[in-house]
Amino acid sequence: MKIAILGHGTVGQGVSEIINDAPVSKSTAQIDIAYVWVRPEKENDQPHYTADYQKILDDPTVDVVVEVLGGIEPARTMILAALEHGKHVVTANKAVVARYLVLFNQMAEKHQVKFYFESSVGGGIPWIINLERALRIDEVDSIHGIFNGTSNFILDQMTKTGASFEDILKEAQDLGYAEADPSADIDGFDIENKLCISAGIAYNTVIEPGDQLLKFGIRNITAADIAFFKKHNWVVKLLGRSLRKEDTYSFIIEPTLYLPGEIEAGVHDNYNYVGLRGTTIGKLSFNGQGAGKLPTAHALMQDILDLQQGANHLYQNFDQKLVLDNRRSIRNYVIRTELDLRQSFADYDLQQNGHYWLVADINAEDLHRKIADLIQQDEHIFFACLNRRAQAIL
Amino acid sequence: MKIAILGHGTVGQGVSEIINDAPVSKSTAQIDIAYVWVRPEKENDQPHYTADYQKILDDPTVDVVVEVLGGIEPARTMILAALEHGKHVVTANKAVVARYLVLFNQMAEKHQVKFYFESSVGGGIPWIINLERALRIDEVDSIHGIFNGTSNFILDQMTKTGASFEDILKEAQDLGYAEADPSADIDGFDIENKLCISAGIAYNTVIEPGDQLLKFGIRNITAADIAFFKKHNWVVKLLGRSLRKEDTYSFIIEPTLYLPGEIEAGVHDNYNYVGLRGTTIGKLSFNGQGAGKLPTAHALMQDILDLQQGANHLYQNFDQKLVLDNRRSIRNYVIRTELDLRQSFADYDLQQNGHYWLVADINAEDLHRKIADLIQQDEHIFFACLNRRAQAIL
Repeated sequence: MKIAILGHGTVGQGVSEIINDAPVSKSTAQIDIAYVWVRPEKENDQPHYTADYQKILDDPTVDVVVEVLGGIEPARTMILAALEHGKHVVTANKAVVARYLVLFNQMAEKHQVKFYFESSVGGGIPWIINLERALRIDEVDSIHGIFNGTSNFILDQMTKTGASFEDILKEAQDLGYAEADPSADIDGFDIENKLCISAGIAYNTVIEPGDQLLKFGIRNITAADIAFFKKHNWVVKLLGRSLRKEDTYSFIIEPTLYLPGEIEAGVHDNYNYVGLRGTTIGKLSFNGQGAGKLPTAHALMQDILDLQQGANHLYQNFDQKLVLDNRRSIRNYVIRTELDLRQSFADYDLQQNGHYWLVADINAEDLHRKIADLIQQDEHIFFACLNRRAQAIL
Repeated sequence: MKIAILGHGTVGQGVSEIINDAPVSKSTAQIDIAYVWVRPEKENDQPHYTADYQKILDDPTVDVVVEVLGGIEPARTMILAALEHGKHVVTANKAVVARYLVLFNQMAEKHQVKFYFESSVGGGIPWIINLERALRIDEVDSIHGIFNGTSNFILDQMTKTGASFEDILKEAQDLGYAEADPSADIDGFDIENKLCISAGIAYNTVIEPGDQLLKFGIRNITAADIAFFKKHNWVVKLLGRSLRKEDTYSFIIEPTLYLPGEIEAGVHDNYNYVGLRGTTIGKLSFNGQGAGKLPTAHALMQDILDLQQGANHLYQNFDQKLVLDNRRSIRNYVIRTELDLRQSFADYDLQQNGHYWLVADINAEDLHRKIADLIQQDEHIFFACLNRRAQAIL
């Protein structure tokens, strides 16, 4: 089976490495890299490099296009062109999948090819395939977890070392875990893409990224916050969670506090921990490398091998109509701010301990809306949700 | 697709329930239960019950035989007969799979049918399929985890309540988590079967259950042991682990001590936590319902749907020749006994604290052999391995 790889950054090189180093006993040894599409200035670096996409599209021996460019354009246009030319497409690009999955699926169906995207969520974790397999049998009503390894690395290192957010972010950038512009990882946009894809598949509905989805990241967390949480025996994680109930669903990304004996608290370094709840399978979670060259390339290879072996993934039509409702999620929250919160939260049980406040039993929509107001006055405000088992005493 | 279920205990009834309750949108709605094989005295309980296995074998419309009898015989004979009659076989029976997987695979290949056994390890966790998928690309050199939910429930409850082993075992039996004869769960035989299957697939070799494989269970653990571990900030779990290195592999089942911040320590109730390490996927672990009616039935249904949809699982020939060597695993161990251990462990660094002893840097083979001698003098002796991060100070 012949493939063309679009882009030869870290993950694209990982795919080449897995194929080129494959022992003959493995299925991967039968995959042939016909082309690597690169920008014109790199075209002459290697013999199978080309900047001429039309040549790839016009070559009938190319079965699969592997898109690892990232970002929306030109990825979107090139994926569509590949599908229109009757080529299967495999991608690791969560941003484009979160926005155009339905379009890609329709185009793939029209041209009788497949569009697979295992590596777009959870890196090396076989998440999409297992979510889809669970859905053959079950209704899945909950998707939750630690979907971003970079933010987990930052929070874990801050907890282990007591260092500042800025210092650990710098360390993450030096290690290649975080981009020069870290916003996608630390402000929750990366998790938003992944949770849109996962919950959309789980509920067979379209969930588009946007401001209506609640997101609060870790940009404002301080070493003092971590110390305060530690004193209360809380471990902080950046969690994404969505719950479907009847015709509504919630969609919330926010820092969340766990007890040390809870499994999420044991997820260290840049690992991901993602889970679902199904009717008969119950709660099922996966812990693994959520990013990185070889784990992500491994997930891309799984899709390629499924195409090679003719294994069909679940086909969803995304036709369920659900309403976003984040008022059903009611929790306790800890807020750190220099503001006096008594007026803003007059309707709620409030505890205060210095700059830290605990608001009891508030729904996520109200909490996030109030924070969006308060951040106008205190741009450094930070908050975290208390997971149910964590004790609500400041 | 028509199936026949052999046995209608808890798991068999779970399969019926999933199929009968399936929404029309699910693939499960297209599965038809043609027969349920039961003992003669139950034959008249329901219309599709029969005690006549030959009738099932001779019915060409039956595509799949689902074996949920448990135990070696008559399961082994009935599985072989089904394969010989050109029927696919799906089973949840870890004891028979651990001993006859190679035979069943050969027989299935000869008669051009499939033998699938997802539910035999990890209950509802999609463990076998994902191990097999990882092996399409990677070498897997480590299998490890909490493979038995009953023993995890007992240890977790003892830790949470401070109650005695006997009281919690009784509770587990009342809840249906433990059998009247609990030996398989508490002495490690259940884990042995599951680790034989998993490591055998991982290394493409035959590993047969037997005394050469190191096993020590939780039968002797006391409330005082749990209290002692707590004081040292250790959480005890019954772990199975196997590591391949060059042409050797280890195979060890023993109580193991973790720090509260380690992920294994966060595995509560009757959950399983099973993992692998692969060349490119890295460490990948699964947390879910390792037993129970619906999760186990879910895993059986996954195999049935794979047969319905023609999805092929990995074919291994189990022809790798590896040597068992448990001397390469060197750890610290805590032993609780009324004996004086100074002579037995004269060659090792030894710390003593009352009835508790810490032996440093001893290989698993020597440790287990010495315990097997010492248990002749102190039948209540207990020990646990210190996981690497747990501090070795008594």
